[in-house]
Amino acid sequence: MTELKPFLSDNAAPVHPAIWEAMRAADAADTPYDGDALSAQLDARFTDLFGRECAGLWVATGTAANCLALATMCQPHGAVVCDQEAHIEVDEGGAPGFYLHGAKLIHAQGTGAKLSGDDIARVIDPIRDDVHQVQPHAISITQASEYGRSYSADELAGLSGFARERGLGLHMDGARFANAAAFLGGNAQSAARAAAGGVDSLAFGFIKNGGMSAEAVVLFDPAAADLVKYRRKRAGHLQCKGRYLAAQILAMLEGDVWFANATHANDAAREVAAGCSDRLLHPVEANELFVRLSAQEREALRQQDFAFYDWGDDAARFVTAWNTSESDAAALGRAIAAL
Amino acid sequence: MTELKPFLSDNAAPVHPAIWEAMRAADAADTPYDGDALSAQLDARFTDLFGRECAGLWVATGTAANCLALATMCQPHGAVVCDQEAHIEVDEGGAPGFYLHGAKLIHAQGTGAKLSGDDIARVIDPIRDDVHQVQPHAISITQASEYGRSYSADELAGLSGFARERGLGLHMDGARFANAAAFLGGNAQSAARAAAGGVDSLAFGFIKNGGMSAEAVVLFDPAAADLVKYRRKRAGHLQCKGRYLAAQILAMLEGDVWFANATHANDAAREVAAGCSDRLLHPVEANELFVRLSAQEREALRQQDFAFYDWGDDAARFVTAWNTSESDAAALGRAIAAL
Amino acid sequence: MTELKPFLSDNAAPVHPAIWEAMRAADAADTPYDGDALSAQLDARFTDLFGRECAGLWVATGTAANCLALATMCQPHGAVVCDQEAHIEVDEGGAPGFYLHGAKLIHAQGTGAKLSGDDIARVIDPIRDDVHQVQPHAISITQASEYGRSYSADELAGLSGFARERGLGLHMDGARFANAAAFLGGNAQSAARAAAGGVDSLAFGFIKNGGMSAEAVVLFDPAAADLVKYRRKRAGHLQCKGRYLAAQILAMLEGDVWFANATHANDAAREVAAGCSDRLLHPVEANELFVRLSAQEREALRQQDFAFYDWGDDAARFVTAWNTSESDAAALGRAIAAL
Amino acid sequence: MTELKPFLSDNAAPVHPAIWEAMRAADAADTPYDGDALSAQLDARFTDLFGRECAGLWVATGTAANCLALATMCQPHGAVVCDQEAHIEVDEGGAPGFYLHGAKLIHAQGTGAKLSGDDIARVIDPIRDDVHQVQPHAISITQASEYGRSYSADELAGLSGFARERGLGLHMDGARFANAAAFLGGNAQSAARAAAGGVDSLAFGFIKNGGMSAEAVVLFDPAAADLVKYRRKRAGHLQCKGRYLAAQILAMLEGDVWFANATHANDAAREVAAGCSDRLLHPVEANELFVRLSAQEREALRQQDFAFYDWGDDAARFVTAWNTSESDAAALGRAIAAL
Repeated sequence: MTELKPFLSDNAAPVHPAIWEAMRAADAADTPYDGDALSAQLDARFTDLFGRECAGLWVATGTAANCLALATMCQPHGAVVCDQEAHIEVDEGGAPGFYLHGAKLIHAQGTGAKLSGDDIARVIDPIRDDVHQVQPHAISITQASEYGRSYSADELAGLSGFARERGLGLHMDGARFANAAAFLGGNAQSAARAAAGGVDSLAFGFIKNGGMSAEAVVLFDPAAADLVKYRRKRAGHLQCKGRYLAAQILAMLEGDVWFANATHANDAAREVAAGCSDRLLHPVEANELFVRLSAQEREALRQQDFAFYDWGDDAARFVTAWNTSESDAAALGRAIAAL
Repeated sequence: MTELKPFLSDNAAPVHPAIWEAMRAADAADTPYDGDALSAQLDARFTDLFGRECAGLWVATGTAANCLALATMCQPHGAVVCDQEAHIEVDEGGAPGFYLHGAKLIHAQGTGAKLSGDDIARVIDPIRDDVHQVQPHAISITQASEYGRSYSADELAGLSGFARERGLGLHMDGARFANAAAFLGGNAQSAARAAAGGVDSLAFGFIKNGGMSAEAVVLFDPAAADLVKYRRKRAGHLQCKGRYLAAQILAMLEGDVWFANATHANDAAREVAAGCSDRLLHPVEANELFVRLSAQEREALRQQDFAFYDWGDDAARFVTAWNTSESDAAALGRAIAAL
Repeated sequence: MTELKPFLSDNAAPVHPAIWEAMRAADAADTPYDGDALSAQLDARFTDLFGRECAGLWVATGTAANCLALATMCQPHGAVVCDQEAHIEVDEGGAPGFYLHGAKLIHAQGTGAKLSGDDIARVIDPIRDDVHQVQPHAISITQASEYGRSYSADELAGLSGFARERGLGLHMDGARFANAAAFLGGNAQSAARAAAGGVDSLAFGFIKNGGMSAEAVVLFDPAAADLVKYRRKRAGHLQCKGRYLAAQILAMLEGDVWFANATHANDAAREVAAGCSDRLLHPVEANELFVRLSAQEREALRQQDFAFYDWGDDAARFVTAWNTSESDAAALGRAIAAL
Repeated sequence: MTELKPFLSDNAAPVHPAIWEAMRAADAADTPYDGDALSAQLDARFTDLFGRECAGLWVATGTAANCLALATMCQPHGAVVCDQEAHIEVDEGGAPGFYLHGAKLIHAQGTGAKLSGDDIARVIDPIRDDVHQVQPHAISITQASEYGRSYSADELAGLSGFARERGLGLHMDGARFANAAAFLGGNAQSAARAAAGGVDSLAFGFIKNGGMSAEAVVLFDPAAADLVKYRRKRAGHLQCKGRYLAAQILAMLEGDVWFANATHANDAAREVAAGCSDRLLHPVEANELFVRLSAQEREALRQQDFAFYDWGDDAARFVTAWNTSESDAAALGRAIAAL
């Protein structure tokens, strides 16, 4: 069988060698749950990275990370505003309804799945301030967005201001936070700070970026960690060998592996984009490409062993990852250009 | 620092070499969630093991496994009967209340945390059959129990009959199912079947037995798998690199590693028990020992570098694991005998 | 103070004399909850009215009636499709999220808040049949709709067929069911049957129609009553003096008071409509009128002591009730015509 | 048919004439939900009665009143401590689990279903302060208790101190609060204050005491009213003709009808008690009597047309009400004495 050139998704990529090494080293420790020496380092490491005090907790999925973070901001009778194509609305199997005990998602209509204060105002301003209507308690944005768009520092500042003004919590789904940070540029630290802006909580994704099973809930109000710890246990997400999750995150942060991996994936995406800039549905600001392609054209690419998902009838989605080879990326760019 | 002889808990033991090997091999695959070739084998493997058709799904914790299984049996307005010291009641942070949407746990009083039909009847017979009182929908038992006691095939047959007669689902928390099976004896297959009896669902634990992060929800009514799959996703437990969890379980089942590991741990427990049979609070039927020991005696053992938990004021709990060395076990037995 | 001519809402109208009389008579009975002789008659009375076997249970509000009925059709991980302006979505304070334990509402876009199978297909057909997306379990329609439109028998037959074909439950919010039935015409019995069509459950509203505090959950699958009874108690809706609620409903059904009251309200609405047919935003098919009126025109009406709500910037909503006087209705019609 | 002498329960007693009158008068008003002039008076009236600022909201049942009040004190991952025979545990169909989104009830063992700080400490002191165990957030006591026992002002002071010291909310289920107040004596105002002590919330029952369908949630932290208002709507308990509920409560408070009714019922209970003081299982401190009676003796009483419930095998429960006739009470006392 010919080997495929994989652009299906970063969420099935193999685990990075540094992660494997760190996990093996964690065999030695022996304190269960999150009482181990590795888990204990997370708060400090994230505080260093983001330059403001925060708490960092591991969980196994982005869905759990998002929902646990949102539980600190939204009561069961409230609502979270998100883009109508947000992952929490479209692809988490109703998890927010479960974790928030029946709270509602209010769908705003952003651009490339990115929201502005105006987009949000448009859907919450008509809500009467009475008990008959569910009131917004929080906002959730995705960095990079579901269409691979990254919020700039300015845009984030605008959203923070809006959220504060309206008394709403501000959460960031950062399944591809690393890619957004790498896109914003600078060094790992400055990029992380720019990409997080002034959000109250961040689901910092590592799995799509070379991890195996650890994402971080980062809480910029460390006092909120108490609730998340109780809710994490209650949701069956407090693993007894948690040290293997902490090890993954620490290995990612150590030497900025997370930033290097994301930079690599973004570079690969840019390489592909160079061959199809006239076909792009969205600017490439992370590691995803949405490319206008007819069914015939997609078929032609598949004949050349490129693997990817269709995106509706007239387009395709390509995702690069930490392990996408430069030659595959270049080949894909050339192949599309040659169509 | 002197090395400790660890009898604290099996839930922090290192990961077994066969598991590491299988996980590394899973790097190669690339289908996300549970769409991979490894996850696809679980139903068949568990069906082979138990000799009746069943579905097998991975999750990261025993708490999630128990609660997802119970969700197939108990409606939000119902109740699950369990021992008053059951893990789901005492040590899961209220997870059943969360997963079952407010359903209740009814506490029966068993012997060594093992329940009989009579124990259950005693608490459910007084419940009036009206809407003012929460009605039992299911029973949950733990194999081996929270006190390291194992249900025999006869006892399980009695419980199945009772559950069927009362129209209740029967769930088994098998965090240490392997140890119970190893205690019941025979080969891996016959022991598994005896230890599971006629339960409707089993949370089959692998993590305490040498795994890293994978337990199995085994559903003996495969039609129930549909609900568990939706609920698993909704609970944030559908990991995108699920192949690493499937790999762990398959490695455990392959060549009966699970049975060998548990047999080893049980043997170590028996070795210890030989030195303190007159002090045992419960018969040793798995890999846990509850030993009458004064504070002074416990201190003496700790001076000899034995690590373990106090159990109330007058006793201690010792747990053996797949990696407990024979010499440590023998040493502990001798040390207690010499007190 | 001048007396206002009230067209604000039917939901604050006084209680009908027949209801008062029946409630006073209920003083004599003395069995608590729903164990009384009046509550016991509901099943039979509704079965007679609708001509198919059903169960009828009282609750104090339409919100509770809708949510309890929906709980028989939609699991916590599922969704209910409704119009984007449905009362359950817009005006029940998130009650469906609470009663359905986090299930989702999917918003279809109907005409005058009335849905067709096509409207529903448009939003559910794109839902991938996988665990990442919340699957529809039920449909909820409102008869008469939030814009005072009534479903015809043919439209209902279409919806039943669609629901059955898709395996979805079909619920009817009948806060103004009586007005829809009166609009469809015939006698009380034939109209009730036509207006209910083949739905699986109906929240039959009596309060807007002259009742005080009793609506009925009508379940056309009587086996579903068991779940509703447990959930009603669990929601704190099983009143201990339930006989006063049963008395209200029986008084409404006795001699077709419900039908007469609704016919009166509809006639009054038609009387008003006669004066403003060119200004109507929606056909008048029940007891609500949505009338295009400038701010200045609305002010002029208020100067003439008409009470009503604004509907956006350019319209007003007028609602008639069982006690709207013919002279008030005629006066309003004339006043609008004269603007 | 001979007329029965009813001692079954106060919860099915007829509605008091003053209530009927007030409800009829409420026909005139026409503002829906709780926007009417009657509902608007509740805060002030309860503030007057209790002598400290509070909010008062109507709901239709004690179950809803208790659960909405508890929702201000207990998070979904927490627990409420109550007596093992508390109504919220035994007779509310699991409503606390529903309203508190899966929170747990922890059962303390009181005396006559009355709890002391020591009783509570006994069950919460062993709870480890970690995420594996559900932590207590609130205490719920019942005044008068499920065995007709009343807390004295001193006992309540002790409980308030204990709750404050432990950081727990303190709720009072006052289904028979009026009877407890009447037992404590003094005038209506002083008795109400003594009977409420320093609790944070009170479900003030009126229905058993002559009301039809209105209980009050009294919140001594008025800021908590906001949450209760949203949750009341979300639970389907915001009736659109709420003025009829407000009217009931105001009629009860006006001229201290609530206190007079309860005093009457208590007197009747005392009258009965005079004939059977040697048979009482609990001191009579409200309007319930638990009387040791053999099956034969109970049968003899029933032959004399007394209606009551058995209480286990060897006793009976008699409940008096606002309308119990003195002659019936005297007759029952004599009949028991004569056994």
